[in-house]
Amino acid sequence: MPGTIAFVGLGAMGAEMADTLVSKQWRVVGYDIRREAIDRLVKNGGHAAASAAEAAKDAEALVLMVVNADQAENILFKGGALDALPAGGTVVLMATCAPGRVEDIAKRVEASGRKFVDAPVSGGVPRAKDGSLTIMASAPPTTFDATRPLLEAMGSNLHYLGPKPGQGAAMKMVNQLLGGINLAAAGEALAFAERMGIDAKAAKDVLLGAAAQSWMLQVRGPRMVAYDGVVASATEIFVVLDAAHALRMGLPLAAAAHQQFLAAASIGLGNEDDSQVIEVYRTLGGKPKT
Amino acid sequence: MPGTIAFVGLGAMGAEMADTLVSKQWRVVGYDIRREAIDRLVKNGGHAAASAAEAAKDAEALVLMVVNADQAENILFKGGALDALPAGGTVVLMATCAPGRVEDIAKRVEASGRKFVDAPVSGGVPRAKDGSLTIMASAPPTTFDATRPLLEAMGSNLHYLGPKPGQGAAMKMVNQLLGGINLAAAGEALAFAERMGIDAKAAKDVLLGAAAQSWMLQVRGPRMVAYDGVVASATEIFVVLDAAHALRMGLPLAAAAHQQFLAAASIGLGNEDDSQVIEVYRTLGGKPKT
Repeated sequence: MPGTIAFVGLGAMGAEMADTLVSKQWRVVGYDIRREAIDRLVKNGGHAAASAAEAAKDAEALVLMVVNADQAENILFKGGALDALPAGGTVVLMATCAPGRVEDIAKRVEASGRKFVDAPVSGGVPRAKDGSLTIMASAPPTTFDATRPLLEAMGSNLHYLGPKPGQGAAMKMVNQLLGGINLAAAGEALAFAERMGIDAKAAKDVLLGAAAQSWMLQVRGPRMVAYDGVVASATEIFVVLDAAHALRMGLPLAAAAHQQFLAAASIGLGNEDDSQVIEVYRTLGGKPKT
Repeated sequence: MPGTIAFVGLGAMGAEMADTLVSKQWRVVGYDIRREAIDRLVKNGGHAAASAAEAAKDAEALVLMVVNADQAENILFKGGALDALPAGGTVVLMATCAPGRVEDIAKRVEASGRKFVDAPVSGGVPRAKDGSLTIMASAPPTTFDATRPLLEAMGSNLHYLGPKPGQGAAMKMVNQLLGGINLAAAGEALAFAERMGIDAKAAKDVLLGAAAQSWMLQVRGPRMVAYDGVVASATEIFVVLDAAHALRMGLPLAAAAHQQFLAAASIGLGNEDDSQVIEVYRTLGGKPKT
């Protein structure tokens, strides 16, 4: 039976996730630094708290959908939310954080007698809205099982990655790694097609129906063919390489892709949509000599 | 109205393509060096020829679904099939050839008063069988339009890439390029996941529902997770790099991927399925130090 959830971080994604919980009969007590975000939750059937600690005080779980690990630590440890959470309650960290940071937070949470679930998400606002997010969870099995109804309410695409906090975060990094490579590779392929006199849109359409198909080509390819100036996203391959460096594992394709994104920034495209990495290839080799 | 087609090269793909034409009321006169391949065509409603030249002599189009450019040239020029083809007939080259070779063949065909369509395919035996192949065609527009019914009979996924012979072949190379990168990248990502203690199958399942999804991950990923020894395919990224070299275009991700496939051969996996490139990553960095 749905219980009381403290939900901290009501941004674009968090607001939709909290609304989804409310619509499924959970009692959601929300907090965000923006008052209008709390008002929206209340209007949709949730409850307001004056601080993260106040939200946590009667909750069985404290969901953190904040921007990064620094914010999560501030709320839990400096802001007093962890102490406010009843003993035996569960902290569910859904923000994107480096695996090492997640491990550190988990240790401190567990040392206080609370439980911890590492559960970053993927899927964007539309899937937050309809409760079909991908959730990459890791936690001790009994903790995961107890939290499963809450997680499934937000993400019908729930995956259990292992017992150690940080494995969910690691899985999210792997997704960023492969997405980043596939994105740069799509730019390389389309620029190569252009260089051989093939229309880029025609090339994209062929590739999407063939062995070279990828989600990145499908979603970012149109903005490579004709850029509309919309900045939908920025690649996050950088953080992945740092983590691999710490593990002493070489990632040659990720490193090569990273160089192309750096080059894109070098030629003034650092604030453009990440699909514009194709301009690196066009600049370096995509234009036939005249 | 379907007419007479000479079909040369009745291998795994060619046999299905010829059968598909027969089933759509084309009169197909087939030739292959293997007598049993011709017998199969006759049994399915086609007609036998004693040579490629004999097949060509009453045909409106000569389809070449042979192994490579050398075979196509032998059949057309040494074997006399081009001279046998009625004036104004069309040579449809569907074999996988380098773009430069296609241009050379096209020139000689057109100099003889016949027409030429560059039309390599993708999709494998199942799609050859049901007529849903991807066909990447280039030819002068009037020639393409005249040949469209024949091409559509074999490939419902028909793409026109431009007026110059070789552009179809170039497009097929771009597909191989991007497929090859996506394949090596999938190995890199899954090995990185393993290195962080995540089960490879769980990682694959997450990635297939997220931003890192690709056809290569979907089709080759299962054989990366657990290799069954089946050699379904070998990467063809090598020929692509040669062509880019000739154009003086750098392809950094393709080159990095190529290195991984070379390393796979170096550690004794040259005759294994190309999914086994993941073993390069496992060997170099995928196993935690004990």
